[in-house]
Amino acid sequence: MSRKVLLISSSRIYGQAYMEYCRQELLDFWGDVREILFVPFAIKDWDGYAANVSRFLEPMGFSIKALHTQPDFKQAISEAKGVFVGGGNTFLLTRTLYEQDLIGLVRERVIGGEMRYMGSSAGSNVAGPTMKTTNDMPIVMPPSFDTFNLVPFQMNPHYQDPQPDSQHMGETREDRIREFHQWNEAPVVGLREGGLVEVEGDKATLKGVTGARLFRAGQNPEEYLPGADLSFLL
Amino acid sequence: MSRKVLLISSSRIYGQAYMEYCRQELLDFWGDVREILFVPFAIKDWDGYAANVSRFLEPMGFSIKALHTQPDFKQAISEAKGVFVGGGNTFLLTRTLYEQDLIGLVRERVIGGEMRYMGSSAGSNVAGPTMKTTNDMPIVMPPSFDTFNLVPFQMNPHYQDPQPDSQHMGETREDRIREFHQWNEAPVVGLREGGLVEVEGDKATLKGVTGARLFRAGQNPEEYLPGADLSFLL
Repeated sequence: MSRKVLLISSSRIYGQAYMEYCRQELLDFWGDVREILFVPFAIKDWDGYAANVSRFLEPMGFSIKALHTQPDFKQAISEAKGVFVGGGNTFLLTRTLYEQDLIGLVRERVIGGEMRYMGSSAGSNVAGPTMKTTNDMPIVMPPSFDTFNLVPFQMNPHYQDPQPDSQHMGETREDRIREFHQWNEAPVVGLREGGLVEVEGDKATLKGVTGARLFRAGQNPEEYLPGADLSFLL
Repeated sequence: MSRKVLLISSSRIYGQAYMEYCRQELLDFWGDVREILFVPFAIKDWDGYAANVSRFLEPMGFSIKALHTQPDFKQAISEAKGVFVGGGNTFLLTRTLYEQDLIGLVRERVIGGEMRYMGSSAGSNVAGPTMKTTNDMPIVMPPSFDTFNLVPFQMNPHYQDPQPDSQHMGETREDRIREFHQWNEAPVVGLREGGLVEVEGDKATLKGVTGARLFRAGQNPEEYLPGADLSFLL
């Protein structure tokens, strides 16, 4: 399998500009592909979102083409060498991907190695088999929770460790992922802000400045540090 | 309209036993109705959940009958003077309510004034028109996000204010509710842990030990203190 996939926990980390902390990982991942088709569906204001992403990524040497400005979405994807699916609300993103009938086409081109895929936050959530490990509020209803299935594991971006001094009685993130595993089997990568997972073919590597916590059904969670080989998840 | 509805943000507040902080509100609300039909669907382990709820509520003078131990769920609801829908995962709760075909029946009996309704956390979420303002993870897919519609406003239980010293880059609760209002009209009561909303007919009152933050589409959020009259939301 010749897929090339970069899954980012969050486009920003505290105190830094958009994608600044992972600039080198982006340059390494994209290599000589410099025209990126940007999918703005996770946020309502497509124009504003695309302008903002261009403002940060173009100075890094990328050329950003926004999908919604193209006359034919499917044709634009069929011709793209790479897509970037930005963050926002995962329910809205998934609903819009279904409305535009893009799930199968994106998957086919990424799995076939014809198009690279970069996702951040909601865009990372939908790279897995389902969007069932999103943190987002279900503000709209998609026809299905099934997503791109570019990798066989689930992403939980913006992963937060339990706070020992918290007086909040709602579930911790770990509680929620444990509930997910009462009903689902796929492993979940709890990716802290500042973390990225890069997949090239059958090799997966944890990158970035923070570690990840891996949750598997019926097993104790495990910690992985940047640089860890996660290929066993593929 | 003769409905009697009690919506609780959370069954526990920090450092206190189950429902201890709102014991008096429960006694006031239930009055001479002391047999409560408990709906455990928001958690996978129905037996364990019902046993736990009984352990805390029976010493307060209530008799707890668990819905899943009844031979006929619909008949049990048709005969109940009151139900309590407990917290857990709102997606799981809603899916199970649809599987058991109970949405219409519960609504009809509560709106008709024949059965009182108490909900906590996920059980409060489903009292509104939809479950679209839950905080929970979408671990299973319900056939619809439409819920009991016992009141015309949405509940956001476990409401948390933005933390000024947070370095987390994920959306605040307020951000999420603002996104909800980009696509939906219903007002949202952000009910902090320790807060309750009591509805009797056409009168709604904020009770408990914490305030609530009210979000309406296109308006600035507003703060309400315990004791506030929220009848204008009905």
